[in-house]
Amino acid sequence: MADHIEGKRAVIEALRSGCPLRSVLLSDGMQRDGLVKDILRKCEQRGVPVKQVSRKRLDELARTDAHQGVVAEAAPFPYRGGGEVLAQAVEDAQEYGRGLIVVLDHITDAGNLGAIARSAESVGASGIVIPNKRSAHVTAATYKSSAGAIAHLPIAQVSNIASFIERTKEEGFWAVAATEHAEGTLWDTDLRGRIVLVMGSEHDGVSRLVLETCDMHASLPQEGRISSLNVAQASTVFMYEWLRQNRS
Amino acid sequence: MADHIEGKRAVIEALRSGCPLRSVLLSDGMQRDGLVKDILRKCEQRGVPVKQVSRKRLDELARTDAHQGVVAEAAPFPYRGGGEVLAQAVEDAQEYGRGLIVVLDHITDAGNLGAIARSAESVGASGIVIPNKRSAHVTAATYKSSAGAIAHLPIAQVSNIASFIERTKEEGFWAVAATEHAEGTLWDTDLRGRIVLVMGSEHDGVSRLVLETCDMHASLPQEGRISSLNVAQASTVFMYEWLRQNRS
Repeated sequence: MADHIEGKRAVIEALRSGCPLRSVLLSDGMQRDGLVKDILRKCEQRGVPVKQVSRKRLDELARTDAHQGVVAEAAPFPYRGGGEVLAQAVEDAQEYGRGLIVVLDHITDAGNLGAIARSAESVGASGIVIPNKRSAHVTAATYKSSAGAIAHLPIAQVSNIASFIERTKEEGFWAVAATEHAEGTLWDTDLRGRIVLVMGSEHDGVSRLVLETCDMHASLPQEGRISSLNVAQASTVFMYEWLRQNRS
Repeated sequence: MADHIEGKRAVIEALRSGCPLRSVLLSDGMQRDGLVKDILRKCEQRGVPVKQVSRKRLDELARTDAHQGVVAEAAPFPYRGGGEVLAQAVEDAQEYGRGLIVVLDHITDAGNLGAIARSAESVGASGIVIPNKRSAHVTAATYKSSAGAIAHLPIAQVSNIASFIERTKEEGFWAVAATEHAEGTLWDTDLRGRIVLVMGSEHDGVSRLVLETCDMHASLPQEGRISSLNVAQASTVFMYEWLRQNRS
């Protein structure tokens, strides 16, 4: 994570969501309005250090001009390794007869990552795997949209999605890519047992190399005239279909 | 709708989302920075009148102190009557052998309403019905989270949810309430044909009177330790289960 959260309301949201914060920086001599008092109270409750800095220093640190004299420094998110998530999924599969790993192939929206984590935690997935480059990473927005789930679900960063999928196959997992170009729907696809669900980026979908690595392709029917689901909603439907097919 | 959208970025979002706007009010003598120029350009493209008003007038109109000299007045949303949505659903059922009306029992978040509209449009639902009091109504946030779907899906306001459900029964619809207290899951529930799906508010779920009016209750299994889906995600899973059971 290690990013900055800027502005009074954004900092309050971050404090509320449980997003780990290294410190909160307040501009020297700023007025202690209701929001600032709320920030100070929440920092005390959560043990987040508050530092006074000059307005000039804040302007340098901030990426926007909307910091309102308040910037929070996020603590780095404790990403797991791909092997850890895989081991967890193998353990879950041995215990429950089913295991699900969700692989996100370069999704770009940190809020979508959080919403997917919320659904993944809700169906009992073992973890989420994202690439360590050109991908949304865990931010304050992820904490917020995950409604806390992000703190309870292992998230791994890997350098190569296709290699990770190959590793899961050695443990008996089947990789299913969600793509509108698939011949069969998710309902025609066997999602029983050990499954790696691969969801693509908001704009480009699953990349060609990753598609070729997957064992199966499955589409989500869209009957509407104009809209398509976003990747978080689509992921939720796929994950619940996995749960449906795997209920005992 | 008839509400106000305040602040530069919020007004840009509203212009971008297709939310119908009556006018955009700009504070006299404010600086024409990049964002303001963008607002003026988008207003011209969309034919939204721009009015110069005094700073004092804007302060009176605005609900917050974060308007930054820009307030958009939203145009009223063209709600349908319950009878119109029901007629559309009957027509869809006659044509496709399936019809879905989504009833939202006092949900409170305008963004959730938009996300549900997006999924509803995507599965081919006939419309959404909300109560005309103590409920989220269609706002700029709804347009944004619906990704445009809100403009293509009939949304009806009714004075009484239970009475509306009774009317649908006369047309052969079965009302299914989503509730965690149900004995059976959505997968055990017959969702074929003409269905009214009733989703409850974020905090209290479906109200008792409405539950009693419904023919069936169905739960969404949650396997996670800490999280539950939000109402928009849960609605999406229910709607896709309706589509699954109704595919030809």
